Amino acid sequence: MDFFETVHQRASVRNFSPCEIHEAQWEAMLRAAMAAPSAVNRQPWDFVLVRDREVLTRLAETLPYARMTAEAAGAVLVCATPERAYDGSTEFAVIDASLACQNLLLAATALGLGAVWTAVYPEKEREAAVRAILGVPEAVIPLALVPIGKPFGPVAAKDKFRRESIHEGSW
Amino acid sequence: MDFFETVHQRASVRNFSPCEIHEAQWEAMLRAAMAAPSAVNRQPWDFVLVRDREVLTRLAETLPYARMTAEAAGAVLVCATPERAYDGSTEFAVIDASLACQNLLLAATALGLGAVWTAVYPEKEREAAVRAILGVPEAVIPLALVPIGKPFGPVAAKDKFRRESIHEGSW
Repeated sequence: MDFFETVHQRASVRNFSPCEIHEAQWEAMLRAAMAAPSAVNRQPWDFVLVRDREVLTRLAETLPYARMTAEAAGAVLVCATPERAYDGSTEFAVIDASLACQNLLLAATALGLGAVWTAVYPEKEREAAVRAILGVPEAVIPLALVPIGKPFGPVAAKDKFRRESIHEGSW
Repeated sequence: MDFFETVHQRASVRNFSPCEIHEAQWEAMLRAAMAAPSAVNRQPWDFVLVRDREVLTRLAETLPYARMTAEAAGAVLVCATPERAYDGSTEFAVIDASLACQNLLLAATALGLGAVWTAVYPEKEREAAVRAILGVPEAVIPLALVPIGKPFGPVAAKDKFRRESIHEGSW
């Protein structure tokens, strides 16, 4: 799919129909994620790929805004790893992993799939819950859980262009 | 350009040849930026579009890793606006503006241009310098300065795929 078409068709998909996502599609999405830039090229990100229905259901039951995970074909937990980030910085780790996650969301769209960023960080309770279910170490930040699947029904992206957000020359 | 081609061709471009970027191209890039998702759809981002050669040169002389800004056709300062973010949160504002910035970098690539994320946040001195030059209010975070232009010479993207970063089923 064309880049601009992809970027403008991407929407937060919260309802899924049953589908199978092939190994090559998961890999294409994760390759896209890892193609993101990062401060001093440290790539301080990790991904937990969850396809076990029981685990998906536990995540859906535990995280308040991630119920659709129970119906998704799978989910990717995108993690930020400050230990590997430039300067050991949490800020850079979170930013860099966020860029990887944005690539993941776009890649799902480009494959005709749907996905949604459900925030884990910076909510401490959600971080603890995800750590417990997926065994994420204390030093690693579970940033976002991204359920991915076949969208149920048509996907309508919002037009969010606001000319007032563009400041010409200076603020 | 195809989405996956765009994502894998994107590289941090730090040397520019003279070129003109048309109004429609700036708008296409900024429209792509604003198509990013944000927590509770708050869109806590703002963009300062700088095309004045003198201001570009001042930014280049002031920011330690943004010297290429002097040769770029222009630059976009991507800002995070916690006041508009979900829960007034700095974390969500920074994440959401980061996603917008990633779309901007990809859009530049899709247009055959080059760009690079030069970090302003979380470096307090750089934030103060950029605020002074571009009049950014105290309540707004100058996240990244992105010089954009025609790449000087061939652009070679890195292959950053690391299978060790994918954890199957659980960490």
